[in-house]
Amino acid sequence: MNGNRTAFLQGLSKIPGLTLVTDSAELKYLAKDRTGTGSESAMVLAEPESEKQIQSIVRLCREFQVSIVPQGGRTGYAGGASSSGNDLLLSLHRMNRILELNPYLPSLRAQAGCITRSIQDYARKEGYYFPVDFASSGSSQIGGNAATNAGGIRFIRYGGMRNHILGMKAITGTGEILETNGEILKDNTGYNLKELLIGSEGTLGIITELTLALTAQPPESVVLLCAHSTSGDVLELLAHCRRSGLDLHAFEFFNQGCLQKVAEHLKLDLPFSNPVPYYSLLEFTLDNASEEFLESGELFQLCFEALPASSDSGKKKFWSYREGISESLSAGPVHKNDISIPLAGIPSYLDQLQQLLEQRFTDLQSYLFGHIGDGNIHINLKPADGSLSTLDFHDQCRSFDQANTELIQSFHGSISAEHGIGTLKKAALLTVRSETEIQLMQSIKATFDPDWILNPGKIFDRMQDSGIK
Amino acid sequence: MNGNRTAFLQGLSKIPGLTLVTDSAELKYLAKDRTGTGSESAMVLAEPESEKQIQSIVRLCREFQVSIVPQGGRTGYAGGASSSGNDLLLSLHRMNRILELNPYLPSLRAQAGCITRSIQDYARKEGYYFPVDFASSGSSQIGGNAATNAGGIRFIRYGGMRNHILGMKAITGTGEILETNGEILKDNTGYNLKELLIGSEGTLGIITELTLALTAQPPESVVLLCAHSTSGDVLELLAHCRRSGLDLHAFEFFNQGCLQKVAEHLKLDLPFSNPVPYYSLLEFTLDNASEEFLESGELFQLCFEALPASSDSGKKKFWSYREGISESLSAGPVHKNDISIPLAGIPSYLDQLQQLLEQRFTDLQSYLFGHIGDGNIHINLKPADGSLSTLDFHDQCRSFDQANTELIQSFHGSISAEHGIGTLKKAALLTVRSETEIQLMQSIKATFDPDWILNPGKIFDRMQDSGIK
Repeated sequence: MNGNRTAFLQGLSKIPGLTLVTDSAELKYLAKDRTGTGSESAMVLAEPESEKQIQSIVRLCREFQVSIVPQGGRTGYAGGASSSGNDLLLSLHRMNRILELNPYLPSLRAQAGCITRSIQDYARKEGYYFPVDFASSGSSQIGGNAATNAGGIRFIRYGGMRNHILGMKAITGTGEILETNGEILKDNTGYNLKELLIGSEGTLGIITELTLALTAQPPESVVLLCAHSTSGDVLELLAHCRRSGLDLHAFEFFNQGCLQKVAEHLKLDLPFSNPVPYYSLLEFTLDNASEEFLESGELFQLCFEALPASSDSGKKKFWSYREGISESLSAGPVHKNDISIPLAGIPSYLDQLQQLLEQRFTDLQSYLFGHIGDGNIHINLKPADGSLSTLDFHDQCRSFDQANTELIQSFHGSISAEHGIGTLKKAALLTVRSETEIQLMQSIKATFDPDWILNPGKIFDRMQDSGIK
Repeated sequence: MNGNRTAFLQGLSKIPGLTLVTDSAELKYLAKDRTGTGSESAMVLAEPESEKQIQSIVRLCREFQVSIVPQGGRTGYAGGASSSGNDLLLSLHRMNRILELNPYLPSLRAQAGCITRSIQDYARKEGYYFPVDFASSGSSQIGGNAATNAGGIRFIRYGGMRNHILGMKAITGTGEILETNGEILKDNTGYNLKELLIGSEGTLGIITELTLALTAQPPESVVLLCAHSTSGDVLELLAHCRRSGLDLHAFEFFNQGCLQKVAEHLKLDLPFSNPVPYYSLLEFTLDNASEEFLESGELFQLCFEALPASSDSGKKKFWSYREGISESLSAGPVHKNDISIPLAGIPSYLDQLQQLLEQRFTDLQSYLFGHIGDGNIHINLKPADGSLSTLDFHDQCRSFDQANTELIQSFHGSISAEHGIGTLKKAALLTVRSETEIQLMQSIKATFDPDWILNPGKIFDRMQDSGIK
């Protein structure tokens, strides 16, 4: 910080209409995101209601060299919205208005603080569909989704946030407003700054408004819950779906450990009489192709058992096995990884991962689930029994991450498919992206935010000039 | 240039295996792209066959401060591949190998110099489909398509190049190789440099290799050629298609002037007995929705006449009315605009455009056509009769562009939907993008290419440090 804390807070309090929170108990709670990492404190929370207020905040923070942590629903898994101790937390939650529906595209213009579910509900009420969806849709915000380029369970059919952002308003680290693209589908006028801001985790600009592409309501669908003896069968089932011309809405998977946890947590019956190592959950359009698929010999070869559901309640129950997993793992220590692997390599990667865990990490219990149809697997680790200290657990997880990063690289995969880098993957980023790339990113950061006040310490730390050629 | 031209050319000739062309007649031809603008000469043409050769070229050019103009098929409409007189032209045409098909995604890895049609043909032969398509597919290169974020006639169903680039290799202005994303669908590891390079018109990096997303073969389709009395009816027909749940593959339009030109040029019969102001060309999946649509009362209300074609030859003939337009206008002077407008505003924009032309530009004849379902219209101007001198024609076009840019801005549209900025739209770019945006772009340019040797003078001119805050 540059200058006097009291003077800074006084300056803030003079911004017309701006709500501030300085209560330390409240700040202690808000200083962390879902990961529980970061500092126990922050300097102040600002709750702006307009771009103008945000511009004033940014300019004041620049003058006093105060770091800004933009916060959406704080539902991230990478520490991207956590405080480093003396920051200004900037919550978007008061900027939660849906502004305009355009029925021609169709599209919806909305402020960044809108809850994801409210966007989904509004679209559905108007006869459209907003397909970006995940377990945290009830609390995540649409601006945070854009800042992290969120993916989710419908990616396989619709893509993620990047595919649904037509226009964006954002405020840079110098307090300037960027308004990019708007409601046009095609715009090749210079570098696409919008695409750069998507997934930049609040380090290049504070996203304040989005124009979102909506789609038609999805067609009637079937959910199929399948039990598999090998991960190879899961991938072969995906290939069989593709060959069958199935219109997939989702292709998810989880292992036996996840099923046990979620059934206990949600008090659900086990869907199959005998446990198997892997389960897949498919959703697809009910059409001629799906009718043939459901009768196909390959389906029965690749699945130990396969249960279809076409009623709303049946589909919901099957989905709860998948969507309840994260929550069922949240009691006690848990270490999360969110990786992606080119599809062809997945069975081999999973075999090698299993070997790695069995040979070197017998104190860790692994829970694997995720969007396997996109090549995206969430690896969750917990202590195998109660005897492992928290410190030892975290040590082992760190070692695991190192070994796993090497393994992922050998498959040309990604160490962060949809969760982003935040603070938790910073070290790994330096090993998976080249020096050239890191330098380009650092320089782009300095371009949008010359004083490094926007979410500093997220994605990467500031390297001194010597590091940048 | 910094230093001795002979020394530079000697250095080039020492790069192992590199083919060089210095014949001035050949260079004169290659110094221009399809727009015919730019210089009559260039210093040398290099035809590399590997990334390694390109890295050597870039480093040598950096040492001697020689500008590099990357060239694909030179089919652009913005002057983006034209020489400024003393440049090194870098043609990618020898890097034209298809490297690998991945049937799981499915995707295709290919070198940047592959002709678009060869990618389409390869995909089709293997049972897949590459949907980015336009009139110049037979000569444009896939790397140039990426560098300009090309759109085309299937955008409405599949999106453009941006939607089909999974991974990219490119060489920056310092000769470093960037390898981004590869064959994974999800990758949130820092800023997405690939998205930034798409559409950057060779100013940030020389694209050398792409991993392209393929899709399933399109379903059986119908082509419908419609005659309309008003542009409003064209837009209402689009809304009717959307309400009918029609699976649109294309929604194109052209005006009466275009139809006349193309029929003369290709010696085609006129499809309708009476001329009307506007025509639309639709292609959509043959399914239940399309059967209902073809019988619907709204279709007959919105169209003066509507002719369906479902045979290959019939569809091809209807498409030739649309795809032959550009070529039919190419004899004599022609001035091109490629704009996009939010869909809701199109009828009103077209009315005001018509007024503008009738009131102020009676010496110009306008030919309107394009991808109206995407809000994208190509405005082509030619002298109304032979009496207008070339100089006066270009003067009038310049005045028209200024007035049209204002009009487009009042509709929140884009002055370049899919053609890019190149040299021809540079002046207009400064009026439609904010100072903040231009400064950010300039600074990003300097980050990737500190010596401004990659296609300098395209998109924008270099502003001196004083211009960048």
